[in-house]
Order: sequence, then structure tokens, then C-alpha cells
Amino acid sequence: MIHDILIHNGLLVTMDKDSRIIEKGAVLIKNGEIADLGPESDLIDADAGRKIDASGKIIMPGLINCHPHLPMTMFRGLADDLPLDVWLNEHIFPAEASQVNPGSAAQWSLHACREMLLGGITTCCDGYFHEDHVVKAIHESGIRAIAAQGVIDFPAPGVPDPGENIAAARNFVEATKDISSIITPSIFCHSPYTCSEATLTAAKQAADDLGVLFQIHVAETKNERNMIQDLGNRSIVQYLNEIGLLDKNTLMIHAVWIDDNDMEMIYQSGAGVAHCPESNMKLASGICPAAKLIEKGVRVGLGTDGCASNNDLDLFAEMDTAAKLQKVALLDPCAMDAKTTVQTATIRGAAALGLDGVTGSIQKGKQADIILVDTDKPHLIPMFDVYSSLVYSAKSSDVDLVMVQGRVLVQKGRLL
Amino acid sequence: MIHDILIHNGLLVTMDKDSRIIEKGAVLIKNGEIADLGPESDLIDADAGRKIDASGKIIMPGLINCHPHLPMTMFRGLADDLPLDVWLNEHIFPAEASQVNPGSAAQWSLHACREMLLGGITTCCDGYFHEDHVVKAIHESGIRAIAAQGVIDFPAPGVPDPGENIAAARNFVEATKDISSIITPSIFCHSPYTCSEATLTAAKQAADDLGVLFQIHVAETKNERNMIQDLGNRSIVQYLNEIGLLDKNTLMIHAVWIDDNDMEMIYQSGAGVAHCPESNMKLASGICPAAKLIEKGVRVGLGTDGCASNNDLDLFAEMDTAAKLQKVALLDPCAMDAKTTVQTATIRGAAALGLDGVTGSIQKGKQADIILVDTDKPHLIPMFDVYSSLVYSAKSSDVDLVMVQGRVLVQKGRLL
Repeated sequence: MIHDILIHNGLLVTMDKDSRIIEKGAVLIKNGEIADLGPESDLIDADAGRKIDASGKIIMPGLINCHPHLPMTMFRGLADDLPLDVWLNEHIFPAEASQVNPGSAAQWSLHACREMLLGGITTCCDGYFHEDHVVKAIHESGIRAIAAQGVIDFPAPGVPDPGENIAAARNFVEATKDISSIITPSIFCHSPYTCSEATLTAAKQAADDLGVLFQIHVAETKNERNMIQDLGNRSIVQYLNEIGLLDKNTLMIHAVWIDDNDMEMIYQSGAGVAHCPESNMKLASGICPAAKLIEKGVRVGLGTDGCASNNDLDLFAEMDTAAKLQKVALLDPCAMDAKTTVQTATIRGAAALGLDGVTGSIQKGKQADIILVDTDKPHLIPMFDVYSSLVYSAKSSDVDLVMVQGRVLVQKGRLL
Repeated sequence: MIHDILIHNGLLVTMDKDSRIIEKGAVLIKNGEIADLGPESDLIDADAGRKIDASGKIIMPGLINCHPHLPMTMFRGLADDLPLDVWLNEHIFPAEASQVNPGSAAQWSLHACREMLLGGITTCCDGYFHEDHVVKAIHESGIRAIAAQGVIDFPAPGVPDPGENIAAARNFVEATKDISSIITPSIFCHSPYTCSEATLTAAKQAADDLGVLFQIHVAETKNERNMIQDLGNRSIVQYLNEIGLLDKNTLMIHAVWIDDNDMEMIYQSGAGVAHCPESNMKLASGICPAAKLIEKGVRVGLGTDGCASNNDLDLFAEMDTAAKLQKVALLDPCAMDAKTTVQTATIRGAAALGLDGVTGSIQKGKQADIILVDTDKPHLIPMFDVYSSLVYSAKSSDVDLVMVQGRVLVQKGRLL
């Protein structure tokens, strides 16, 4: 049975819409849900079977990784510092063909979930192949997840006949939707350059029919538009918009090569964006105008991308890089300030995934996806502003405790 | 007394000129010096009072931080995400005026040295004011250092009369040179926009007379050339070269706004460069063409810059960012490959400081500045290439053991 839990005596960073911070705060958790929060003095006598003393620690919502490709953890560091075509065609694609199977997908997804939990990530939004086996690993780990079966117009792991790709995705969603209250199925079209218009629209139709999130890589590289047939004078975003792919149930991943018109179109469509700056840098793809998208009102979350192109699943490092990259790209030190950056890794990320009613901030009625960050480290002293400390100084290794839906999965920096 | 030490059974990454890696390697240390190294089987019977089993760990040279401003650790996170003039004039300068004194400079320098040692940094090249007190902290910490007294044409902490700045620097060098075999004095002119030509040349003359390294911030921001009087049609690098400031005993810090002619001039002069990408990003200064400088043959080392502008002293994070930033800036995934990046944090950094005869690689006759990196972490599994793992996946918190001149200062990730 799950005890009621009181986390108290910590610096409570709620990430709610008022960005409320309570210096000596407490959170009461009942049945995996946040039942109350406030100053410690108001809650200290609450009836809770377990009390967690968070003195010297930051209490904050768990981080949200909008794009990890979990099984690709097996390819961490397999091939780096190479031209994109050599990297893909001579290393990643052959490795995927020979090494991705149900067993390896599950094994490395579990490994990935453990790495994420240790680093304070409580929700991930995955997309890959053999996703039914990925889901088994997610379930075992206890992390919250959106999990999507991949759709691509090539033979793929588990789907040798591309003609079956939509049916496989539909079957995956049906088979997954009742496994766990914290795992939500989804459909993930690889990209507009690897899927025909017919595939793209059929996959989006399937996602709409089933009421699930539709994910797609969009405008990642400069050369991408050359790879898309029948694009004509349209931008990639315009193309996807015209064929009905962009709406509030769509997550666009990368969105690097987009202009002001594209940004307006994304905003109007209501689609969310998964921003993966470290992957975009390492693969030399380019720089997503994330600060502009956020300013416009687009729901932007942060993602690590897979371990073949980052090479880790560390959102603390990603926050630091995300903030600094926007500043140098715009030559504006005010761009992507620390608070906004923490939001992209928490509440904005949750919103991009459509999960902001459930997680992403510490608010009454939300699920208790909460982490404690230990501030008793030389690199976190002094601390003038908690958002600055979290973005520019904190490391994933400072995460002390992690709970998902009130269930403690990491304690004293170790997996339970 | 210091025992002879044998480190054995680890993955030995020498960073020597042949980039030799020994899968099951060992290093024998006598009197703080590397007496021998090779496959474990050749050395295991060596007579050593202490044996350190490095199984599951990388044995590598300690990292070299070419630019930390140690006392500024007290300003970590004091003021972030602000326009440069507001940041400097309304926050950093007033804080320096009111809070930097001999006691605080020593206290926060010790704090900084501890942070660096925990993160695997065994050498730093500092420059600030009250540097005699900084040196006391460096000495207490046991880290190897170049320590420079600052020179600036304004009243500075400890030097209220700018007319005394050169004399103060000379006195500092004389008073510091015999304190410790691992602390080398130096002179640090703040910049061409805060020092007159007369000050710049007098400071360089003093450095040459005393046979010490001359350091200077150069071409950090786009606006810098507007701030320099009498620059005329010359670039900043050209100006410094013409007044005799650039030679092999000069360390240029930042070097962001330089063109091909400047790069050629730097190369011909023999000057070294301290590349501080995270600071340049966070302050929105710009991007140093580090990969081009390295290709040209310039000695380029890596620096964190002070904690007011980074906000940490973490060279593992800096390596990751340095590699990724060059790739995205050049839209070339091959730029700044992982091995080159590790070199900038080790042997190339040592060379930039003129210390490559002493430290920066694991070679017979060099000082035993060595670290062990624990690879038994989810984010370091799998490991296909050790340089990739060190740059793209390892964290400063993976550092297990740190020794400077054979003296163990960090063990099991904790300061002794």
C-alpha cells in the first residue's frame, strides 16, 4: 500500500502559473496525488504515514523529456563527429537493422529509464519501433510516459512490410491504452521525408480516431526540404499544415529550419514543439528559434533526443545548453532566461505533450511527480536565484529523490 | 612522506602526442612524478607503497582550467539574463567594490579550488585582484596553478591607485615565485579597453622582465572595438600585436571577434588562446572560432571563466558545449571532434599555458596530475569510444579520484 507522504522543510519551487516559490515549503501527497501544499508551518501536523525531510533541498516538479528514442541508448557513442550521411547510412541504419529486436529494445529502454529517473526525469515522450516492448520496460521502471509506435515508409524493426505501418500503429495504441494509468499510447510518424503524403495523413487520421498524440520530426536539417517530393514552393511547415497534420494534438520535433511565417502557422495551429538543442548542435543541424516560439505563445518543451545524437538523457545539461544557445544565437543575454528554461523542462514540456493537467508543476490535484535537488554542493553555493542555480549550476547528479505518482523510485541518488 | 603509488587495472588515456590508449594500463608514480607507465602486466610487480585499483575507471591526466577568476565564485548566480551593461555596471562592479577584500578573495578561492578538484581539474590559470590572498587559498587546496595579479586603469580591490598597478603586479610576482613548486606567478592585464597603451606595454614589459606568463582578455564582445581609443583602422589583435603584446608568453582570453587575418597573426606570434565557450554563450558575446584556431596550429586551451558568467567551474560540461558549439556554428558535425576537445582540456590547455613540459598528459617524467573517472554509471554505458564518452556523456560528478603531483586530494568523489 502507498502511504500518505509529507515532503517538508525544503525550498518549494512550484512551477505553477504564478511561479510561486515557498522558502520553507511542504507538499502533502495522498494516493499519489498532490493533496495540499504551502508553508511548512501550515502542513507540518498533517496526517502522513511517511515524512520526507527536504532540508537543504529544492522541491520541484519532475522534469519532462519530450524526445528520447529510448532503445537508441544502445547506440550511445557508437559513431560521432561524422558527416550526417555517413553517420546515418554507414552506422546508425545498419546498427538499427542488425541490433534492434524486441529483447534489445526492452533492455536498453529500461537502461534509459533508469538514467532518466536518476537525473530527475519523471515523464518521457518516446517514439520508436518494437514500442510494445519499450512499453514493458517503461512499465517496469515506473516512469510516466507517452509511448509511440513509429511509422515510416521503409522496412522497420518489427514492421518489415511498410504497407502494415499504419495498422501496426493502430494495433499498438489499442493494445497499450489500458496497461497503466501513467502510460499513454501515441503514434509517431518519422518525418515528411521518409513518409509519403498518404502515410502522413493516414497516420494522423489514426491518431485522431484513437484520440492520441501525433508526433513527427519536422525541419531538422537544412537539406530536409530537398528530400521531400512535391513540396513545391511550400515550406515544410506549410506542407504539413496544408495536409492537415498540425493541430493541438501534434508534437513537432526539432523545428530548426523554420521562418517567421512558419512560426505563425505553428502558433495558429496549436501544435507543440519538442526542442532538442544538444542534438541539433552535435549533428550540426542548426538552431531552433525556441525563444521566439515561446514568445509567440507556442507550447515548447525540451528533449534530449536519443543517445546516438546527444549522447545522454540529461535535462539539467540540456537546460543549461538551451538557455546559453539562444543567447549566443540572438546575441541577447536576456533571451531564454533561467525561469523560462526551467519551464520548458517542466510545465511547458507537460503542456507541449498535453499532460499539463496531470504533471509539470506542483499544484493541488496534480499527480505527485516530484524531485528533490540537493543544494549542499560546492557548485550550488552561493545561491541567489533558484532558477539560475537549476539551469546554470545544477547537475543531474544533484538529484537526491525522485517520485512518480507518489511512488519513490530514487532515494539518496540511487534507484530503489 | 609520500609513498610511491601504482595506479593499475584501468583504461589508460595518456593524451600523449600519439594519443596512446592502453586498455588495461598502469602508471607508476615516484616522488610525485610519473616514473613509468604501460600495460598492467608490465608494471604490476613494481615496488610501490600504495596501489590504487582503477578497475572500471578511466585513468587520464587532470583537466586544465585556463580561466576561472577564482574569487568571483562569490558572485555565482548573483545577476543573470541581463543586458551586459546592466550586469556589469549595476551588479558585478558594485559587488566587486563592496565585497571583494583579502578575506573574501581567499575564502571563495578556496571554495572554487574545491569545486574544481571535485570535478577533476588539477591545474588552473587564474587572474584577479588580492591575488596574494588567492594564492594562499590555492596553496591550501593543493591544486596546481598559475596565479596572476590583475592590472587595470581603474581603482581596483587592493590597488586603489591605478598608478601603482604595475608595481603591485611586479611585487606580487616577486613575493609569489618561491611559495610552492606548483604555483607560478603571472601578470594579467584586464583588457585593451580598460588599460591604456602605456599600461599594456608596461605590464607586458614587467612580465617579460620577470619571465612570467602575460594574460589578457581580447576581443570578447562585438562592442569592444568601440571602447578602445586610438584603434584607428586596426583590429584589436593587430593593435596588440603592433604594440608588442603577442608572443609565446602571452595568453589571449576569449578571442571571439577575430577574423582570418587576426588568426594568422595570433598563429605567427605564438600566443596561446583560452577558449571559454559557455561564458561567451551566456553573456551573448559570440562564438570563438576555436576549431579554426586549432587547425591553424594555435595553442588553444579551455576555460570556464568566472562563476559570475558561466555559472560553474566544470570542464566536463565545458568540453561537451565546446564540441557541440563549433559543430553548429560551422554546420559541420566533424568540427571539434571529441579527441581534439579532450586535448583542449588537457595537453593543449597545458601548452597554451606553457606548462606542457610539466602536466597535461600521462608521460614519463611529467608530474603526476592524474584523475580517475568512474565508468560504472548508466550514462556511460555502452562505451564505444573513450573520447566520445568523456566529452558527450561524462559528468564532473563521475570523477572518482584526483591527484596533483602524486598527492591524492579527492578519493571516492570526496575531498580529503
